Amino acid sequence: MALTDHHCHGITVEPLDRAGFEALLTESEWPAPPGTSMFDSQLGFAVRRWCAPLLDLEPHAAPEEYLARRQELGPDAVNRRLLGAAGIGTFLVDTGYRAPELTSPRELADLAGGVAREIIRLEHLAEQVAANGTTPPSFAADFAETLAGAARDAAGLKSVAAYRFGLGFDPSPPTAREVELAAARWLGREADGSVPRLEDPVLLRHLLWTGVQLGKPIQFHTGYGDADLDLARCNPLLLTGWLRATRETGVPVMLLHCYPYHREAGYLAQVFPHVYADVGLAVNHTGSRSAAVIAESLELTPFHKALFSTDTIGLPELYYLGALLFRRGFGRAAAQWIDDGEWSPRDAERAAELIGYRNAARVYGLELT
Amino acid sequence: MALTDHHCHGITVEPLDRAGFEALLTESEWPAPPGTSMFDSQLGFAVRRWCAPLLDLEPHAAPEEYLARRQELGPDAVNRRLLGAAGIGTFLVDTGYRAPELTSPRELADLAGGVAREIIRLEHLAEQVAANGTTPPSFAADFAETLAGAARDAAGLKSVAAYRFGLGFDPSPPTAREVELAAARWLGREADGSVPRLEDPVLLRHLLWTGVQLGKPIQFHTGYGDADLDLARCNPLLLTGWLRATRETGVPVMLLHCYPYHREAGYLAQVFPHVYADVGLAVNHTGSRSAAVIAESLELTPFHKALFSTDTIGLPELYYLGALLFRRGFGRAAAQWIDDGEWSPRDAERAAELIGYRNAARVYGLELT
Amino acid sequence: MALTDHHCHGITVEPLDRAGFEALLTESEWPAPPGTSMFDSQLGFAVRRWCAPLLDLEPHAAPEEYLARRQELGPDAVNRRLLGAAGIGTFLVDTGYRAPELTSPRELADLAGGVAREIIRLEHLAEQVAANGTTPPSFAADFAETLAGAARDAAGLKSVAAYRFGLGFDPSPPTAREVELAAARWLGREADGSVPRLEDPVLLRHLLWTGVQLGKPIQFHTGYGDADLDLARCNPLLLTGWLRATRETGVPVMLLHCYPYHREAGYLAQVFPHVYADVGLAVNHTGSRSAAVIAESLELTPFHKALFSTDTIGLPELYYLGALLFRRGFGRAAAQWIDDGEWSPRDAERAAELIGYRNAARVYGLELT
Repeated sequence: MALTDHHCHGITVEPLDRAGFEALLTESEWPAPPGTSMFDSQLGFAVRRWCAPLLDLEPHAAPEEYLARRQELGPDAVNRRLLGAAGIGTFLVDTGYRAPELTSPRELADLAGGVAREIIRLEHLAEQVAANGTTPPSFAADFAETLAGAARDAAGLKSVAAYRFGLGFDPSPPTAREVELAAARWLGREADGSVPRLEDPVLLRHLLWTGVQLGKPIQFHTGYGDADLDLARCNPLLLTGWLRATRETGVPVMLLHCYPYHREAGYLAQVFPHVYADVGLAVNHTGSRSAAVIAESLELTPFHKALFSTDTIGLPELYYLGALLFRRGFGRAAAQWIDDGEWSPRDAERAAELIGYRNAARVYGLELT
Repeated sequence: MALTDHHCHGITVEPLDRAGFEALLTESEWPAPPGTSMFDSQLGFAVRRWCAPLLDLEPHAAPEEYLARRQELGPDAVNRRLLGAAGIGTFLVDTGYRAPELTSPRELADLAGGVAREIIRLEHLAEQVAANGTTPPSFAADFAETLAGAARDAAGLKSVAAYRFGLGFDPSPPTAREVELAAARWLGREADGSVPRLEDPVLLRHLLWTGVQLGKPIQFHTGYGDADLDLARCNPLLLTGWLRATRETGVPVMLLHCYPYHREAGYLAQVFPHVYADVGLAVNHTGSRSAAVIAESLELTPFHKALFSTDTIGLPELYYLGALLFRRGFGRAAAQWIDDGEWSPRDAERAAELIGYRNAARVYGLELT
Repeated sequence: MALTDHHCHGITVEPLDRAGFEALLTESEWPAPPGTSMFDSQLGFAVRRWCAPLLDLEPHAAPEEYLARRQELGPDAVNRRLLGAAGIGTFLVDTGYRAPELTSPRELADLAGGVAREIIRLEHLAEQVAANGTTPPSFAADFAETLAGAARDAAGLKSVAAYRFGLGFDPSPPTAREVELAAARWLGREADGSVPRLEDPVLLRHLLWTGVQLGKPIQFHTGYGDADLDLARCNPLLLTGWLRATRETGVPVMLLHCYPYHREAGYLAQVFPHVYADVGLAVNHTGSRSAAVIAESLELTPFHKALFSTDTIGLPELYYLGALLFRRGFGRAAAQWIDDGEWSPRDAERAAELIGYRNAARVYGLELT
């Protein structure tokens, strides 16, 4: 079955040296300490184990060997081999982060032989509105109009409020006056005319409430990410008030990553009818432990609320591994439950289909490929 | 061995249609989204797997089949079959929530062929005191007197401060003057004379400190529950100051549910001599994962501090499943430890007896049945 | 291979009666409730299972039998047998807690036939500076000078800010004026001239920033400990701001224990190049569950950032068990990953060496024994 990756980014088409490759193997923005390597991690071990054979190497090939072979084949061949083997049919691509360095949704779809749809990152779009020229009184209207246009063909929206302020923002929509005042502070901040990073909680809330009006699913970064966030402020439970405030709108809220708060996310996905959750990023980064993480994520989350994703960025390895580890991890958890006499094989298959692509199709309105 | 379920509620004796049954399969108060079903969850799979055979169906019977057979047998037969097979000898029943719709402790005991004792819910009792007529100056005395009467034959008390305010309340007892002022705010709040929900943290603390004076075990809702709570405010660690303040009283404090904070609860149960913990609710809701949750809950919790419960409400399935999953889960965890050469079979049996009924008997002063 | 225990304390050379032994089997400072025993815990079961044979008893010997045999052999023989069998070559000993009752690093090294280096506890040293006479204006200089002397031959420093205030302190260094004012408050607090416990967050921060200037690794108590701490304030994520503020110094920050926040610690160890983590204390206390805890701790933590420790205090059993459970636990986790075809045996061995002693050697500048 072809999976739907409901949260991912483009990959690089440039050759990568060792430092460049290691930088994409971790959420750190700094190199490993002298004498150590980012290959010494669950993800590093998993790349050598599972991706090496696709590059005609033995499983567990040494990092040097792996990188040399990668160089030899060249980015295009590597990308096609890994993406082609991933078995992902539909990609929902967040285009609001490092997009110029990465493949576009269309390029990605071509490389994979699949379909790609766009996810619009709210904060990035607002910063573009500011860069293109807006004023405090017109910002709300300018943003709403730009968003409506950008989102017309998009599958959904995404918020990185977790990175910019944390998820503990006031759940209610700000007033027009508050938005104008906040826009004035924001737009006036830099002397050189450049647009500062949008971090104001009033504006972050405003973007979200504007997004809600479109009725499309809204993804939230929650949990684990890079050193630019404060993980304790990314606990999805901090969204509880906002989830109460948006429940009646019916707009699906997609909690991304969640780890190490995936059990907390499971609670939210169970009690709020519009909340969904994945553990995408964690599956790749926890490698041999991903079956355990997937099993934990399915404790409280109803099976019609869990989704597959890889959160790939940069490395095509992450598409291949993310899909493989999801299939293996869910498969092993379910096999155990079947062996123990708890689940039936048919139910396991049905749950896999829900999580792998049916839930995404239903929530995002996708055609099954 | 007959278990002691130290935290549970009554069950319904009315027939349940599909919507009614699904509503009791989840902590959500809203139906599953269109096209989905609450049966697609660990608990839903577990009901079909384990309860279906007690209704003469094949394991993993389809939801429709299961509900049709349930209808056919009628509530009384279903209740007797499931409760009769649960192997629970003693029920400590929280009578302060939805009691009119549910079986009384006596009815439950009759259905199960066991013994039932009452647990008094502090907030509910205070609301009854208010409904029956009290005044700000007399509230403290009226509540103390009513509680003493209500608790005379009860096995213990229960607080749902987690739902009403969260567990991060000031740990010290409020003064008489503070209680009177808070009672005045509370009792005067509704124009139509009805009693508002008790949510004032001064009063919630006052109920607890009044309860402490009775010397009976006090149960606390902690962790996971329905959408009416803010899970982050239900972390049992928020009780740390109150546990320090009550340690010398020796009053047993029973942390209920705890998930996903069961490891945190284990810390409290280890370091405070009067603290106990269970993972009752989570056992049913995590289904095939319950063995893992039980194993985690026994990392730091001393075996003389862990208790069995089902937190059943409404469905007799929850009694049967809760008991079965506890037996299976503890049994599988212990079997693994025995196989690995870590535990002796005799120790495993002794720990099972402690958790299954001996700890409850010691703490609540129950006779072993 | 001989392990390096990068965080531990001395052991007692006095005979222990049952109460004394049980007190060291738990993080509680109070005895188990009447009718119960601290032996009924994962640690208690593990001691009877694994340590009994070293005292010529059957595995799972009864507590009475175990304690009688311990008494019969006497402390010196018991200490030598258990320490001798632990396979630990290097001990980094925190000498700032209960040192007079416990073996010194040299005595420990002699008993074990290994090498011991000291870890200087910042708060304890500051209290000694105060006890030896200092003044608010001279405190900063006096402490800096004393620390430089004390740390000259030490392997590193340790902070128990978690116990004294919590880890959510202001991350920036206090000014000289703030330090002097805080020292005046602290030094003037007790009428009888004794030195009060150092709990002032300004001074705690000052000790840390003074320590940073020495360039040696700084250990932090994080996570689980005794009832004197507030576990929610010991979440290592509370250090995030301080980790950002110290990243460029390159001073290694060693997160100790971490449980139940070991996944959060793994995030910090992955994204910050100077952060390391262990789950020492939890390995002993979770006994038969320690393999699972170790596996979880290696989800995000790069293998060049994880370390072995026992956090032994008082009982030589904790050295033996801590080493055995680490070897068994890591070994079982890795064996599973090898069986599943995820890791190669050679990689598993290399990761074990990194965690067991190579990371400590690199970070603390130790010779491999």
